[in-house]
Amino acid sequence: MSSTATRYKAEFRCINESCKSTYDLNEVIYECRKCGSLLQVSHDMDALKEKSGTQWKELFDSRLSSVKFPNTSGIWNKREWVLPHVEDESIVSSGEGLTHLFSSERLTKDLGLGGLWIKQCGISHTGSFKDLGMTVLLTQVKHMISKGVGIRAVACASSGDTSAALASYAAKAGIPSIIFLPSGKVSQAQLIQPVSNGAFVISLDTDFDGCMKIVKEVTRQNGIYLANSMNSLRIEGQKTIAPEILQQLEWKAPDWVIIPGGNLGNVSALGAGFEMCKELGLIDRLPRIILAQAENANPLYLSYLKGFEEFSPVEAKPTLASAIQIGNPVSVQKAISILKKFHGIVEQASEAELSDAAARTDLYGLYNDPHTGVALAAMLKLLEKGTIQKGEKVVVVSTAHGLKFTEFKLKFHEGKVPGTNTGLQNSIHSCKPDLSKVTDRIKEFLDSRTK
Amino acid sequence: MSSTATRYKAEFRCINESCKSTYDLNEVIYECRKCGSLLQVSHDMDALKEKSGTQWKELFDSRLSSVKFPNTSGIWNKREWVLPHVEDESIVSSGEGLTHLFSSERLTKDLGLGGLWIKQCGISHTGSFKDLGMTVLLTQVKHMISKGVGIRAVACASSGDTSAALASYAAKAGIPSIIFLPSGKVSQAQLIQPVSNGAFVISLDTDFDGCMKIVKEVTRQNGIYLANSMNSLRIEGQKTIAPEILQQLEWKAPDWVIIPGGNLGNVSALGAGFEMCKELGLIDRLPRIILAQAENANPLYLSYLKGFEEFSPVEAKPTLASAIQIGNPVSVQKAISILKKFHGIVEQASEAELSDAAARTDLYGLYNDPHTGVALAAMLKLLEKGTIQKGEKVVVVSTAHGLKFTEFKLKFHEGKVPGTNTGLQNSIHSCKPDLSKVTDRIKEFLDSRTK
Repeated sequence: MSSTATRYKAEFRCINESCKSTYDLNEVIYECRKCGSLLQVSHDMDALKEKSGTQWKELFDSRLSSVKFPNTSGIWNKREWVLPHVEDESIVSSGEGLTHLFSSERLTKDLGLGGLWIKQCGISHTGSFKDLGMTVLLTQVKHMISKGVGIRAVACASSGDTSAALASYAAKAGIPSIIFLPSGKVSQAQLIQPVSNGAFVISLDTDFDGCMKIVKEVTRQNGIYLANSMNSLRIEGQKTIAPEILQQLEWKAPDWVIIPGGNLGNVSALGAGFEMCKELGLIDRLPRIILAQAENANPLYLSYLKGFEEFSPVEAKPTLASAIQIGNPVSVQKAISILKKFHGIVEQASEAELSDAAARTDLYGLYNDPHTGVALAAMLKLLEKGTIQKGEKVVVVSTAHGLKFTEFKLKFHEGKVPGTNTGLQNSIHSCKPDLSKVTDRIKEFLDSRTK
Repeated sequence: MSSTATRYKAEFRCINESCKSTYDLNEVIYECRKCGSLLQVSHDMDALKEKSGTQWKELFDSRLSSVKFPNTSGIWNKREWVLPHVEDESIVSSGEGLTHLFSSERLTKDLGLGGLWIKQCGISHTGSFKDLGMTVLLTQVKHMISKGVGIRAVACASSGDTSAALASYAAKAGIPSIIFLPSGKVSQAQLIQPVSNGAFVISLDTDFDGCMKIVKEVTRQNGIYLANSMNSLRIEGQKTIAPEILQQLEWKAPDWVIIPGGNLGNVSALGAGFEMCKELGLIDRLPRIILAQAENANPLYLSYLKGFEEFSPVEAKPTLASAIQIGNPVSVQKAISILKKFHGIVEQASEAELSDAAARTDLYGLYNDPHTGVALAAMLKLLEKGTIQKGEKVVVVSTAHGLKFTEFKLKFHEGKVPGTNTGLQNSIHSCKPDLSKVTDRIKEFLDSRTK
């Protein structure tokens, strides 16, 4: 175990400012026993402040060149800020984090920006940013089991990236995983990742809310640990996106960071990470945060238009950005608090706008999922409006690999998303295997490209 | 441009030992003009030897902690060994290389090995190891264009990972790409990556060999550059897998490295990388190499059984490992030469064996493609035979992300691959949304796991 890690402490703390009850991280607890609010992991900031910002930066930078476990993870190479108490033996890692900060000089120039980087969180073990939280959750579970806490399995209700990450990390740890999902809504093809990773997948004859109800009941007893996003351990992993971006930019904050949001845990985590960097002296100013929502699931956008004075859940309509099709986000209060602190903005994107934005940037070598499309569309709209100004530096957080969204790509190029820019559509051209005919077709194509 | 890079030189050299003609890397040339053999990139080893092995290791290790372009690439942080002459401005990178070396303590122990690592080359920008070669090819093309060589586009014949990587890197570089494929054999779904990245995709009314014939003709003129694997620039990128693995193992060679093979360029590249590490003093012994072939496409395995005394092409039968369904490999002579030098072994895997091996290791948190399944099956068979011995250290090269092979996973778990171990199949369980019924089902599952 890293000798520096032991000096630091963390605990669960109730997010309700008038309660603030604390609990040991080794307790099986998801909500405050006194007031029922969500919990967050709270770090002993005084102990962390014993190191200067420069010392933290030097420590984190030095670990980049280490190939020793667990520095091969972008979470555990910053372990003092995550779960300082866990020993190496408990760490469940598949090399999460340390994702590339993609930059295209041509795209940056075409948009007139001073810098544009896509943080590729989806180029990861299970193909989405969910790995970042699951490594932390499974590590804490393995640690608790080693301390004699009776946990027999981990469980969540999810039909998407969360279940894939949970099943993979649970398999890595050798801990059984259980996935609940509404019957008839999800196919084996959509669940083939957790099925392959040996999860016990239960299809319930109810809707998603019914599944959440059952998973909450089941995890109250039976030694089954809850892995849904109300478990704040996952936030600790996702939080590291912020210091990792800063580190990749040589500890200089960009002007804007754009992130797509549904349940809003991710934007809360991102903000918490930047705040920690500022409070501990690694940066001296915060970036502004832009939260991007699909127009079909935009409750926070509507609240933002009214200065966040009130928030009302909406009925989310189907969207291509299916993972953020959420009308009543769990982490809305955390997110509003973060957006206020970061002089934040909420922007929305229609189905056509998110599709066009993804397709347009694919032409620069990216391969974006629809959620990243929402964030890219928000960027394009705010550039158009002049909110993001020419010459500014922007980071867009990409949350999943496009390989998970073949249908989304197909629909676009087959012209099945109404209102999109048909000029961005591409298709397959048929030709006889005749050299002169092929040469003619290529000439046409090249001439059209150089126009 | 890195000042250290300019001291080194590389050129094309004919692989025919009795010819050895050399050509400038800025020439548009794919085969020797004198004897028609393939070319390879040949480095000025005397210049490279001016640095000691320790100095090279220190240089490469120091670059791991650098976040500056192009050290953010696992190819270009070893640029002196790849294309020493290119300037930063020509480098076309999407953060390829630097992939995780996955290790599962539980799996290693269950197999009785001294160490087992899966080199995750598929967790990459386009989802396969092809990115490693394409960054080099497009960089050289961009460099040549900057020198006034008249290249208007890059082209290949491919229906798989090669076309995805070519289209993405060409889009990044802003250079048009052209993909040829046999009509009726490949769907838009299979080609949605290059379609999304804006490639000009031409479906020809012929078979794959017919497409290769046309692409070779087209690239003889018209300013169109050939990107198929006979272009040896790609080998230079794939070669870096070897020093990267060694670096991740603190410059200690494992006992065995296992890699799947079809066209055999990849095993040639891997061997070339290890040889360079040994010749330049970074390691003092070579690992042994195991080349794994699908039984349905096993010409090199058949040749190996006869001590490589002769080689005969076979008619490759369909295999789940579709990317290595090749009966007459382009790089067979290079591969045999490498395997002899590395005291190498060729093993084969049946459809059931490769499927079982992939499914079995998925239960440890992996998510392997069928080609990695072939390599894993070879490892299991050679362990069983005692060729790989208990306590030895093994690295398996994984070539693509399982997300590209949903059908393969589905087929297995739906029991559609004859002869597989049905005990490894998993499925979705239906249940009424009733707490006691759900609890009973979970109890059954957990009891079965702890038996």
